[in-house]
Amino acid sequence: MAGAGPGLALGGLLDYKTAKFALTRNRRVGLLHRLLQLGVLGYLLGWVLLVRKGYQDTDRAPRAAVVTKLKGAAAVAGTSRRLWDAADYARPPQGEDVIFLVTNFIATAQQAQGTCPESAAVLDAVCTEDADCPMGNPVARGNGIKTGKCVMFNTTHSTCEIYGWCPVENSTLPRKPLLAEAENFTLFIKNTVHFTKFNFSKCNTLQTNDPTYFKTCLYDSFFSPSCPVFRVRDMVEAAGETFGDLALLGGSIGVRIEWDCDLDQPAARCQPQYSFSLQDRSYNFRTASYYWDSQRQLHRNLLKLYGIRFDISVHGQAGKFSIVPAAVSIGTGIAFFGAATVLCDLVLLYLDAKAEFYWKEKFEEAKPPKCKTEAAA
Amino acid sequence: MAGAGPGLALGGLLDYKTAKFALTRNRRVGLLHRLLQLGVLGYLLGWVLLVRKGYQDTDRAPRAAVVTKLKGAAAVAGTSRRLWDAADYARPPQGEDVIFLVTNFIATAQQAQGTCPESAAVLDAVCTEDADCPMGNPVARGNGIKTGKCVMFNTTHSTCEIYGWCPVENSTLPRKPLLAEAENFTLFIKNTVHFTKFNFSKCNTLQTNDPTYFKTCLYDSFFSPSCPVFRVRDMVEAAGETFGDLALLGGSIGVRIEWDCDLDQPAARCQPQYSFSLQDRSYNFRTASYYWDSQRQLHRNLLKLYGIRFDISVHGQAGKFSIVPAAVSIGTGIAFFGAATVLCDLVLLYLDAKAEFYWKEKFEEAKPPKCKTEAAA
Amino acid sequence: MAGAGPGLALGGLLDYKTAKFALTRNRRVGLLHRLLQLGVLGYLLGWVLLVRKGYQDTDRAPRAAVVTKLKGAAAVAGTSRRLWDAADYARPPQGEDVIFLVTNFIATAQQAQGTCPESAAVLDAVCTEDADCPMGNPVARGNGIKTGKCVMFNTTHSTCEIYGWCPVENSTLPRKPLLAEAENFTLFIKNTVHFTKFNFSKCNTLQTNDPTYFKTCLYDSFFSPSCPVFRVRDMVEAAGETFGDLALLGGSIGVRIEWDCDLDQPAARCQPQYSFSLQDRSYNFRTASYYWDSQRQLHRNLLKLYGIRFDISVHGQAGKFSIVPAAVSIGTGIAFFGAATVLCDLVLLYLDAKAEFYWKEKFEEAKPPKCKTEAAA
Repeated sequence: MAGAGPGLALGGLLDYKTAKFALTRNRRVGLLHRLLQLGVLGYLLGWVLLVRKGYQDTDRAPRAAVVTKLKGAAAVAGTSRRLWDAADYARPPQGEDVIFLVTNFIATAQQAQGTCPESAAVLDAVCTEDADCPMGNPVARGNGIKTGKCVMFNTTHSTCEIYGWCPVENSTLPRKPLLAEAENFTLFIKNTVHFTKFNFSKCNTLQTNDPTYFKTCLYDSFFSPSCPVFRVRDMVEAAGETFGDLALLGGSIGVRIEWDCDLDQPAARCQPQYSFSLQDRSYNFRTASYYWDSQRQLHRNLLKLYGIRFDISVHGQAGKFSIVPAAVSIGTGIAFFGAATVLCDLVLLYLDAKAEFYWKEKFEEAKPPKCKTEAAA
Repeated sequence: MAGAGPGLALGGLLDYKTAKFALTRNRRVGLLHRLLQLGVLGYLLGWVLLVRKGYQDTDRAPRAAVVTKLKGAAAVAGTSRRLWDAADYARPPQGEDVIFLVTNFIATAQQAQGTCPESAAVLDAVCTEDADCPMGNPVARGNGIKTGKCVMFNTTHSTCEIYGWCPVENSTLPRKPLLAEAENFTLFIKNTVHFTKFNFSKCNTLQTNDPTYFKTCLYDSFFSPSCPVFRVRDMVEAAGETFGDLALLGGSIGVRIEWDCDLDQPAARCQPQYSFSLQDRSYNFRTASYYWDSQRQLHRNLLKLYGIRFDISVHGQAGKFSIVPAAVSIGTGIAFFGAATVLCDLVLLYLDAKAEFYWKEKFEEAKPPKCKTEAAA
Repeated sequence: MAGAGPGLALGGLLDYKTAKFALTRNRRVGLLHRLLQLGVLGYLLGWVLLVRKGYQDTDRAPRAAVVTKLKGAAAVAGTSRRLWDAADYARPPQGEDVIFLVTNFIATAQQAQGTCPESAAVLDAVCTEDADCPMGNPVARGNGIKTGKCVMFNTTHSTCEIYGWCPVENSTLPRKPLLAEAENFTLFIKNTVHFTKFNFSKCNTLQTNDPTYFKTCLYDSFFSPSCPVFRVRDMVEAAGETFGDLALLGGSIGVRIEWDCDLDQPAARCQPQYSFSLQDRSYNFRTASYYWDSQRQLHRNLLKLYGIRFDISVHGQAGKFSIVPAAVSIGTGIAFFGAATVLCDLVLLYLDAKAEFYWKEKFEEAKPPKCKTEAAA
C-alpha cells in the first residue's frame, strides 16, 4: 500500500521510504486503536486460526466405499416353522450402501394371468352391478383391467372382476412382524474414505491381527467404538424408534458415518462417528419370481416385503495446513488492522474536540509552485 | 499497516499515531481516487455481497437419500395377453437412485447347456464348411465355443455349431415396444437432502395431512411443483425425446434434483428444481433365472431387457451467514482501497505535470545526523 | 487504508491526499524492502496464480453417472461342462457403479426346511453327547437352531442336529477358481461427469462415428487411453494383485476415475485418468432362489458367490476464471505488501543504528494548542 514509488535512478530504488505519522498524545484515540488492534489480533489468532483452523485447506467431499453384511438367523413360527438366514432376508445380497432387512411380508403364491375379483380393499373396485365396472378401464390403484362384470368377492362384498395376475394379493398384514427376532441380527459396515485433495485413505475397521475380532465384537459408542458391527435393535433405538413398530410396516433408517480428520495430527486420531436417524416410518416394495408350470403357463410368486432399509451415508471433512488458505486468512486479518486505523482516524478527525487541529497536522497542504519551469527543472 | 510502531514507554503505547498526508489540490487525481473508491465499494457491496453472497459460507456437497417407486399397470397383447404391474417391470424392486422400467424384452425360455447353431446375426459365426469353425475358439461377440462343425441355421444360412446355452437368443426385436402403455406410469421420488455444514435437512415431499395427496397428484412445474410424482412420458418429453423411440431400444434419462437454499431466509423458500436430460439413446441388459428340470438338468430363462433407466442425481448448495467468509470478502475489499491509493499515487508522481514537486512533498528526505554519539544519546 | 478523510466541503471531496513518507537513504533497509516486495510478488504470481490457479473458482464435487457392462464368455469344465456368459456371472445385471463378477461359488441345491447335522466346520456345533446341544439355542455362526440331539456328521465327526435349511452348505471351496478364464472378460465403463458450478458435462467415451470402436478396442494407458473397455486381468494387476489369487476367494477392486479439468482451456484437454486399487482381499455373499416342489414344499437353491467386486468411484475438479477468487487472491497478496512495509519499519525503528533519529522523523509530534477557542475557530 505504501512506499511503492520507485526513485528516479537505480540508487533511488534502494532508498527506503517509511510512511510519516503525526504523533498525537491523544490517549483516548490511542486506547481505542490498541483495543481495536487487540480485537483484530484476537479474532485472527483465536477464531480464524484456532477455532476455524483457517490455516488449513479442507476437503469436504470424501469418496467412500461401503460394504455391508447382515448376519443372524431366526426361526419363525408361522403356518409352518421356518428358519430365516441372511440369504433369505437381506436385499440386495451384495451388501451395498443401501441394504434392506425383511421383517414382514405378504406372499401371494402361484399367481397366473387370468380373471378374478379385485380385492375389496380397493375403493374403486367395489360394485353393485356390472355397470359399475366399465370394461377395459384399469382399476385405480388396483391390480388389473376391469372385464365389465361385477362378481362376489366374499360373502359380504362384491367387486369388479379384473384381468391381471390372479388371485390378487390379500392386503391384510399380520398383526405382529414375522421376523421379530431380527432385532438381534447384526449389520457389519466396512467403510473406507478417501480424501482426494490430500490423497489420504482410512478404513473404519480396526487394524487387528485377531481374525475373530469382527465376529464377536459389537459396537458400543463408549466401550467399543472401533467395532463396526451394529445390532439392529440398537440402531433402531438410536434413531428414536422401537423395533417392533418399525418391523411391522417397515421403515427407513439413515446411518451416518462422519469423519472429521485433522491431518496435521496423527492419523490414528481420525476416527468416524456413527449416528442414526429415522428417515421414514413405512417402507415396502413388491418383488416376484417367475416360473412356467407343466402346462407351460407363466406363473409368479409375488412378495410384498416390509422391512428396515438402512441407508448408509458417509460424510466427512479433512483439514491440513496449506500455504494458500493460511495466507488468505492472515492477509485478511492484516487488512483489518488497516480498517482499525481508518476508524480511529475518523474519530480523531471528526469526533475529537481538537479535530480541526489534527486535520491540519495530518493533511499538510502541498501547494505546487505557480511557475512550471521551476518545477520541471 | 500503519501506526504499528509502539512507543518507548507504557505511556507511549497509548499515543495515537495517524499517518501524515500531503494534501494536494489536484482535482483530476482526486476525482480519479474517488471514482476508484466508488468502484471498489460497488464491487464489494454489489457483486461480492449481494450477487455472490460473499458473506455466506456455502455447502455444495449435500448428502441425499432417494427412495423411488414406479406405479401403474398395463395389459400387453402379445402372443398371449398379459398384465404388467410394478413387480414385473421395475428393477431393482427396492427403488434406489437408479431405477429401471422394462419397456421391451426378448425372452429365450428353457435354455440348457448343449450344442446348437450360433445365430446368423453374429458375423463371426457364418460359415460354409467345417474348416471355418476351428474347434475350441469362442465366437467373437457370440454365445459360445465353436465345436468345429458348420451346420444349417435356417434355410438360407449356415453357421458354426457352438457349445453354450442353447437355443441361442433370437436377436430380432419386435417393431413396437411391448409395454407402450408405460408412458402413463408414474415415478414417485422421495428425496431428503442434508447439508452437513449447517446441519439442515429438507425433504422434497409436501408436509401434508392429506394421506391421499401423493396418490392422486401429478407433478407440474407450474401448477403442482411440490408433488414428487412424475409421469414417465412427461419426463421423457422434458428430456427432448419421444416415449415411443426410447421404449423400443431403451435409453437412460437423467433426473436432476437441484436445491439452492439461502438459509438466511425462511426454510420454506428452499424448494428443489427438477430437470430431465437424455443420457443415452440405448440401454439394455440381460438377466436370467435358473431352475432344474425333472431330469436334474440346469435350465435358465434368459431375458434381454430394454427399457428406460432413470438416474436420479441430487445437486445442491446452501449458504448461510458466517463470520469467516464475510471477513475474507470485506478484508479483500479493503485491500483494494489500498490498491486504489497506490494507483493514484503513481498517476500523481509520474504522469502529473507537477510530478517532481509532489514527489518532494510526499517523500521528505530524512538526513540522519553525521555524528552517531548524538543520535544515540 | 489511506486518504479516507473527506474534506469539509464538496470541493474538499476532490482534494487528493497522498500519504507522506520520510525518505531515508538507508540502503540496507531499502534492499530488504525490495526483496520482501519481490518475494510477495513471486508468491502472488508464481504460487497463487500459476501453480494453485488462485484466479479460478473450483468445483470439487462433480455429479457422475456410471453405466457398466461386463462382457465375455468361458466354458468351465466342472462336474459337467458349462458355459458362463454375462447373464450368469454379472451382478446386479443392470450395471451400476458397483458390479460384481462371479469367479467361484459353492452351490447347495434343493435345501428345504428340516433337521440335519450342522457342518463340522462350525466350532460351536461339534458335540459328543446330546447335552452339548441345548435345544432351542441357535448355533453361533452356524446355520440353524439346535434340536437337542448330537448326531453323526460323517465317519469322524459328530455335530449337533439343527433345524434350518437342510442340507447345510458344504464349506469346502474348490482349490482353483471355477471361472479362471474370467481374466479375459472385459468391463465397459461409461461415465458422464457434470460440474454443477460451471454447468459443464463430459463423457469418458470417445465421440466416434465408428460403431464397432467400443466393441474392439481395449484400454491401454498409453496407446488407447480413451477406450473405456478394461480387461479384468489388467485391472487386477494394476491394483497389485494376481488374478488367480483374487478369483479364488474373491476381492474388491476400487476403480477410480479422476477428472482434472481446466475450463479456461479447450474442453478436449479434459480427460479422465483411471487408477485401480485393492480394497479387500476377500469378498463373498450368499443369494438364494426359491421354488415350490410338487408336494408344495418350499425349496431353495443357495449360492455362496465369490468373485471380484468393482467399485467405481468418480472424482474430479474443474477450475474456471472467476472474479471473486481472483480478487481474494490478489487482495490477499496486496495485504502482504503492507506487511512487508511493517516489517521494514520495525527494522528501521528498532534495529538500525540511527533508530532514534528515524523514529522522530517518522512520528512528527503534533501538539494541539492549549487554547480550545482558537482551534474551534
